[in-house]
Amino acid sequence: MNWYEGAGPEGDIVLSSRVRLARNLKEFPFPHKLSPATAREVADRIEEALFSASANLKREFASLEMDAMEETDRVSMVEKHLISKEFAAGGTGRRTLVNRDESISMMVNEEDHVRIQAMRAGFALDESYADALRLARLFEEKLDIGFHPQFGYGTACPTNTGTGMRASVMVHLPGLVMTGYIAAVVESLRKIGFTVRGLYGENSEATGAIFQVSNQITLGVSEEETVADLKRLVVQGLEQERGIRKELYRLQPLTLEDRVNRAYGILKYARKISSEEALQQLSDIRLGVSLGLLRNIRVETLNRLTLGVGPATLQKTVGRPMGPDERDAARAATIRDCL
Amino acid sequence: MNWYEGAGPEGDIVLSSRVRLARNLKEFPFPHKLSPATAREVADRIEEALFSASANLKREFASLEMDAMEETDRVSMVEKHLISKEFAAGGTGRRTLVNRDESISMMVNEEDHVRIQAMRAGFALDESYADALRLARLFEEKLDIGFHPQFGYGTACPTNTGTGMRASVMVHLPGLVMTGYIAAVVESLRKIGFTVRGLYGENSEATGAIFQVSNQITLGVSEEETVADLKRLVVQGLEQERGIRKELYRLQPLTLEDRVNRAYGILKYARKISSEEALQQLSDIRLGVSLGLLRNIRVETLNRLTLGVGPATLQKTVGRPMGPDERDAARAATIRDCL
Repeated sequence: MNWYEGAGPEGDIVLSSRVRLARNLKEFPFPHKLSPATAREVADRIEEALFSASANLKREFASLEMDAMEETDRVSMVEKHLISKEFAAGGTGRRTLVNRDESISMMVNEEDHVRIQAMRAGFALDESYADALRLARLFEEKLDIGFHPQFGYGTACPTNTGTGMRASVMVHLPGLVMTGYIAAVVESLRKIGFTVRGLYGENSEATGAIFQVSNQITLGVSEEETVADLKRLVVQGLEQERGIRKELYRLQPLTLEDRVNRAYGILKYARKISSEEALQQLSDIRLGVSLGLLRNIRVETLNRLTLGVGPATLQKTVGRPMGPDERDAARAATIRDCL
Repeated sequence: MNWYEGAGPEGDIVLSSRVRLARNLKEFPFPHKLSPATAREVADRIEEALFSASANLKREFASLEMDAMEETDRVSMVEKHLISKEFAAGGTGRRTLVNRDESISMMVNEEDHVRIQAMRAGFALDESYADALRLARLFEEKLDIGFHPQFGYGTACPTNTGTGMRASVMVHLPGLVMTGYIAAVVESLRKIGFTVRGLYGENSEATGAIFQVSNQITLGVSEEETVADLKRLVVQGLEQERGIRKELYRLQPLTLEDRVNRAYGILKYARKISSEEALQQLSDIRLGVSLGLLRNIRVETLNRLTLGVGPATLQKTVGRPMGPDERDAARAATIRDCL
C-alpha cells in the first residue's frame, strides 16, 4: 500500500503533509555546473551513503536512473508528487531514491545534489519533518555537506539557502472556494511568506479546490519555527473551512446535498471523464463525506483516486499507452470500480 | 392507470397520438358570443347528449366545471394535455368531460362548443381518430351540429373550418436535434402544411427533444386523408430518426453511452431538479433505452415521468401546494423513486 492510500489526522481537509530538505556536497559544484561524469559521481556517492547506512535502508529504497525510465513512468512519478516536472525530463546523473510505500523520495541532481522529501497522509508535519531529518542527518554523517554557521545550508538557488526546507500541506478548501473567501486567504498567506498553489505546482489552477500551502522563507528562521508556523496556519484554516462548510450546509442544505449526490451519480455512471472534471467531482464527494452526506465512501479511496487519475498513472495502472479518449474511458471505469 | 402510463406502437420514438374534432351547435352563436346563461345551456345540452347515450358513458365520464376547480387541478390538466391553457383560466359554462383513464377529454365552450380529444400512447392515429369519431357521431345523432355540405363543419376560427380536425403526434427526436437536422425537417413540414411545436404548445421550445407535429389544413381535405398524410410523415420521420441514432452510436459509441449513463446517474442521485432539466435528462435516458444502452427502464415509466413532473401535477401527486424549491426537491424524489 502506498502512503496516499491511507488517511491521516484531519483527513477530511488535509490530504497530505510534506517536508523537503535540500542538501549539497561541499566539494562539488551545484548540479547545473557538473560534467556528466561528475554528476554520476555525485549520484553514486549519495546512493552509497544511503545504502551503506543499513541493510534495512538498502532493502527499503529503490534507485531509479531517470534516463533509463519510460516517459509514462516518469510522468506518473510527477503526478504522484514524487519528483518535479523538470526532473522528470531526465539528464545524466539524475536519479530518484524512493522507498516502497513512496512516502520518501530523494531527487539526486535536481537543482541541488539531493532533495529529500517525506510525505504523510493527513495533517502530520512533525512526522514528515522527522522522516526527512533522519535521512538528512544520515547524509551529514557520511558526506561533507555544505553548511555555513551563519547562513545555514548552501543551495543552488538562493531562495532555498538557510534551512533548505520547504514544508507544505495539501488541503481541500471547497468552502473557501464556494464563498470566494479563498482570494483573501491566499493574499494574506502571501503577505506572511507562504505560497499557495494548485494541485500541480506553480501555475496550476486549484482544480477540485485542492491547494498546496508552503513556506517561502528559508533564511533567518529555524526548521522548527517553519513547521510550527505552518501548523498554526493549518489549524486556523481548518477552523475557518469547517465553520464555512457548516454554515453553507445550514443555509442551503438541499443545494449541498444535491451537489454532492450529483457528483456521486456522475462518477458512478459516467463512461468517460477528463482528469479535471474527475478532480472537481471528487472534490464535491469529499465535501459530502466530510459533512456526513455520503456514507460508505472512505477518505482513503478519495485520496487514491485524486492522485491516481492523472494520465500517466492511469496508463501505468492499465498497463499500456492510451490515447486521450481511451484514457477518459479508463479513468471513468477506474473511478466507477472504486466507488 | 392513465393512458399515458402505458406504451404503444413505436413507443421508442412516438410518445402519443392525438386527434381533436371541433363541433358546434347550429342554433347557438360561437362561445365567445354567448351570454353566461346561454353558455351554461350549451354545456348542459352537450353533457346531456353524452350522458343520455348510455349508462356506460355516464359511468365512464366525469363532468368538471372549470370555475369550480382549484387552480392546481386545472393547471395539472394542462400539463397532461387534457385541456388548453386558455381554457384552464375558466369562465361560465366552461366544462371538461373526461373519461377515467384520461384518454378522452372534451372541452365544452372553449373556442368551439365542443372539442373532442382522443389520446393514445405510441403511434396509434387510426385508433385515436376512431375514438374521437365515435363521440362526434354520437353528438351528431343527438344534437343539431353545424355542417355545410361544401365547407364542412363550422368552427369559431376559420382555420379549423372543414374537418374541424387536428391530428397530432408527440415524438422524441434527439437524433435530429443532436445533428441539427431538425431545423430542415421542421421547415419542410411547414411547407406541406404541418406545424411543429414543443412539448407545451405554440411558443414552447422543444425541451427534451420532444415535438408535437400536427396538420394545419382542415379545408379541402378529408379526415382520412389528414390521418393518412400524418401517418406517412411519421413513418418517414421514424426511419430518419432511427437511422441517425444508429449512425451516431456507430460513430461515437462512448460519447452516447456516457451521455445516457450520466443522465441516469444524475436523475438517480439529484436532490433537486427543475422540470426543464428533468425533461432533458429523461430525453437522454429515453434515447439510451431505445439504443439498448440502459436496461430495466420501461418506456411507460419515462412516459409517466415526462407528463408527471410539471409543477401542478407534481403538487397534485404530493397533495399540497409547494414553493419552487420544494417542488424541485419533490420532483427529484419522484424521479429517483421511479427509476
